[in-house]
Amino acid sequence: MPKFMDIHDGFVGVTQEQFEAAHALDLAIQAEEGVSFDQAWLDPKTGKAFCLATGPTLAAVERIHQRAGHPAGQTFELAIEV
Amino acid sequence: MPKFMDIHDGFVGVTQEQFEAAHALDLAIQAEEGVSFDQAWLDPKTGKAFCLATGPTLAAVERIHQRAGHPAGQTFELAIEV
Repeated sequence: MPKFMDIHDGFVGVTQEQFEAAHALDLAIQAEEGVSFDQAWLDPKTGKAFCLATGPTLAAVERIHQRAGHPAGQTFELAIEV
Repeated sequence: MPKFMDIHDGFVGVTQEQFEAAHALDLAIQAEEGVSFDQAWLDPKTGKAFCLATGPTLAAVERIHQRAGHPAGQTFELAIEV
């Protein structure tokens, strides 16, 4: 299944607990679209977050984030990996 | 050791082999700065690449990419991870 990276902005000052809570909202509904959010990282100073996911399509990954209340600014399909 | 994500632009149409060759240039010199580039992903359609690294400082990570000939457009320290 394809792999995707998405980028979020605006998470300045978000704590570990808050980030885990936001991520949990994705995990709770991801199976409905066949998506799996595997890892997520945050730089709380700049507010930039990255999520690594697998899923059937880019649109499916974006729909989960939208429904969870934190749409991604940008999503990329990672056709190449090393 | 802190973890970092950097973003590169301009890798449109780059192949798996070319991406591996670019990554190998980082791996060849990363120990000189105590850096480890652990994973890298590329969307060859948009040319956007992501590198996940550990290292002593953000500046050390950036120096390796600069010396390898592909400076990152942006680098973020990932203080929070889930």
